[in-house]
Amino acid sequence: MGAETGSGISELRERIRKVTLGIVDLMAERERLVRELSKVKAAAGESPFNPEVERELRTVAMARAAELGLDADLVRRVLTLLLKRSTEVQTRSTGTQGLTHMDLMRLAKRMEKEGREVVHMEVGEPTLGAPEHVAAQLTEAALRGYAFYGEAQGLPELRSAIAEDLNERFGVDVKPEQVVVTQGGRFGIYLAMAATLSMGDEAIVIDPSWPHYKQVASMLGCRPIVHRTSLDGKWMPDPAGLEGVISDASRLLVLNYPNNPTGAVVPRALMEELVDVARRKNLYVLSDEVYMDYAFGGHVTALSTGYERTIMIMSFSKSWGMTGYRIGYAVAPVEVAERMARIQGSLLTCVPEFVQVAALKALSDRETPRAYREHMLRGIEVICKHLDAIGAEYVRPGGGMYVFPRIDLGGRDPMEFAMELLRKRGVGVAPGTVFGDYREFFRLSVGDSLEKLERGMAELVEEVRSLRNPQK
Amino acid sequence: MGAETGSGISELRERIRKVTLGIVDLMAERERLVRELSKVKAAAGESPFNPEVERELRTVAMARAAELGLDADLVRRVLTLLLKRSTEVQTRSTGTQGLTHMDLMRLAKRMEKEGREVVHMEVGEPTLGAPEHVAAQLTEAALRGYAFYGEAQGLPELRSAIAEDLNERFGVDVKPEQVVVTQGGRFGIYLAMAATLSMGDEAIVIDPSWPHYKQVASMLGCRPIVHRTSLDGKWMPDPAGLEGVISDASRLLVLNYPNNPTGAVVPRALMEELVDVARRKNLYVLSDEVYMDYAFGGHVTALSTGYERTIMIMSFSKSWGMTGYRIGYAVAPVEVAERMARIQGSLLTCVPEFVQVAALKALSDRETPRAYREHMLRGIEVICKHLDAIGAEYVRPGGGMYVFPRIDLGGRDPMEFAMELLRKRGVGVAPGTVFGDYREFFRLSVGDSLEKLERGMAELVEEVRSLRNPQK
Repeated sequence: MGAETGSGISELRERIRKVTLGIVDLMAERERLVRELSKVKAAAGESPFNPEVERELRTVAMARAAELGLDADLVRRVLTLLLKRSTEVQTRSTGTQGLTHMDLMRLAKRMEKEGREVVHMEVGEPTLGAPEHVAAQLTEAALRGYAFYGEAQGLPELRSAIAEDLNERFGVDVKPEQVVVTQGGRFGIYLAMAATLSMGDEAIVIDPSWPHYKQVASMLGCRPIVHRTSLDGKWMPDPAGLEGVISDASRLLVLNYPNNPTGAVVPRALMEELVDVARRKNLYVLSDEVYMDYAFGGHVTALSTGYERTIMIMSFSKSWGMTGYRIGYAVAPVEVAERMARIQGSLLTCVPEFVQVAALKALSDRETPRAYREHMLRGIEVICKHLDAIGAEYVRPGGGMYVFPRIDLGGRDPMEFAMELLRKRGVGVAPGTVFGDYREFFRLSVGDSLEKLERGMAELVEEVRSLRNPQK
Repeated sequence: MGAETGSGISELRERIRKVTLGIVDLMAERERLVRELSKVKAAAGESPFNPEVERELRTVAMARAAELGLDADLVRRVLTLLLKRSTEVQTRSTGTQGLTHMDLMRLAKRMEKEGREVVHMEVGEPTLGAPEHVAAQLTEAALRGYAFYGEAQGLPELRSAIAEDLNERFGVDVKPEQVVVTQGGRFGIYLAMAATLSMGDEAIVIDPSWPHYKQVASMLGCRPIVHRTSLDGKWMPDPAGLEGVISDASRLLVLNYPNNPTGAVVPRALMEELVDVARRKNLYVLSDEVYMDYAFGGHVTALSTGYERTIMIMSFSKSWGMTGYRIGYAVAPVEVAERMARIQGSLLTCVPEFVQVAALKALSDRETPRAYREHMLRGIEVICKHLDAIGAEYVRPGGGMYVFPRIDLGGRDPMEFAMELLRKRGVGVAPGTVFGDYREFFRLSVGDSLEKLERGMAELVEEVRSLRNPQK
């Protein structure tokens, strides 16, 4: 009997081995076919990567897996490896990553440390910083015991205050259990995506967009799918066009109003329409509202649509100039909030509690956000005045802290132009290519002082003029 | 010609699709066989995981892949996913995550907020906290301008000071470019793994181990492979046994001395041998040395072996009681350090600079770590004295802040016991099952005050005795 069982084991092992080798054989067969396809496509002048075909293949394979009772995660991962390999074979991808505005910002700050004066229009940072009464909380709170391991979801008193604040300001009904205090807005977006996306899923992004959305989706093995907006369309998304890019693999729609980089603000009716698209397709809505306090009209939060799969992201960085504190929050359905807290707990334990106490203090200060909004409005005036002088086209922002003009550089590479402007004239700007396929555009941030904005724009105008009239 | 090519393309696509579905079919077939094998093995009393069989299968499959000219990395990764799934199916993992000591810690802290006094032996937290002169830096630095977006790799002055400190103390040759300031040791480990592992790779972990290593590896789609140590073997890893579990998919070896949870410290010769194993197999060594200042003899850092693929992780949490500050650092080969900084920059921008300034202040304070080490030594005395009273077996720690005894509970579930001990007697301990397959063990942390440790251990002893003599 023991011997019989033993031989049963070795027979099964032999069969597993054969099947495993069969899988390897098919993988090799697949690679041969992909290579052949790649040659034929090149000869026909077709692009190597076809998202439609890949998406359909994925759908069919996942359906087969479900039919056969195979673990979906396993199949999703194996498919991702196979499909990734397909594109590699076809494009011989080099894997180099482009520069972003954050690289420009780091270079700009390094120049400052070396004594150069720099006008910071490359980064969305309110350069006046946080109020003193907020900074004062840090040491005080640390000494009062807020410097130990804490709850991954955040201090209960801060979560309650956040819920109350939102409910009071926007007439919504947020519960403290829905709030997760996050290590900054950036990390909030990572947590939201990590909690809702699986490898192979798609995330819908409306371009131009802050590059972080696409980067995080890619990092999670997901694919960002783009719905483009344009200057001519006043940067407004089109609900029908948006619906058109959504597939079965789509799981999440990113909204960001007031918008980075365009400054667009969507009216309530359009917000409702956009969320309706997500509702019909059963997508999560990830609404990045970190510029809510810089909405020059009034802010429309996605939370007010009442759609239950909404995740709203907010940060203390912009409203209170607390960029270096690295603190923000998310409001999400309770089970998503809990998943986000679990991931944050696993990666970071918690947001430093003394920073949370400082944020709690900031929350009751409505004066600083108002002052910053005033600053942004006046900064935008300064920038637009200079833009008009060189005939740049732009849509006047309805909110946020950026202007996104089209500036004719006569074909000059925009990242090169930005690098040169920074190195030669000490003026930082972010090229439009950082935010999507917008080669002639630049994002100009108005976080710096009005004096510096005046100076920076005068330099920019001069540089553009010297490009246009190289004789002089 | 265009039409011909077109039909060539769709024919090839159809064949790729068929082959892909064929792979899915074989995966399902494989899973059926694995399930059957698992039943037969269970009936025969055999263990589900057989490294010998697995390794042989891997060798055969890789040979076939080489024969067919298939990319080795791709096959290795797919195999790891398939084999990982095999063990999961065979062990009937439910996919629910077990409770860890961090859940116990959070419950314990919640009880404290409700007014209960709790003895914290469940978590590695020096409960005296950070010195005042460190806390004082927070507000001061924030007001001096250290509260804006900063370098992802960390403040240059802190990175230089860290390199100098290590070079001076351990006679190594660390350059500031190798140092990344991280948002805590936890995140440092995530960054190190994310920068070196790809989906389907294996990470070698020596059990018992801090659960974070395995969790992060799994999160990245990798497979943790365990080399077990035992109480009888004084928790020392065996280089030959360790080498035996390494396969060609293995990419990284985690070392952690002084050890969490056992308190084991490896002598220099053994450290060299362990690193030699990694060198022969071309693995990264991820050496978690957050307890370096609690090495009761002298600390042996993996950096001193001179192996170039070493990544050392350190934290300010233990040495200076800065758990709530969330700051640590990594020392890595320059290109790994840069990759880690890029990932950190993308997810978090930077570690708050005012926290980095506080850490810089802490670094020059050697008195606090010395005082904490003294505390840990005396705490271990207290714990061992009580353990002796109930005849628990343990190895006296050579470093760290934990004792890891085997306590006979007559078959009682250890997590249940820990929950009851916390709820009934206000004493937190971490069950051994959190750290691997160590059902009769408990990790007792000595971070709390000596008075509380005395009280906590007396309660623990009483609870164990009442379990053993239920009559009383």
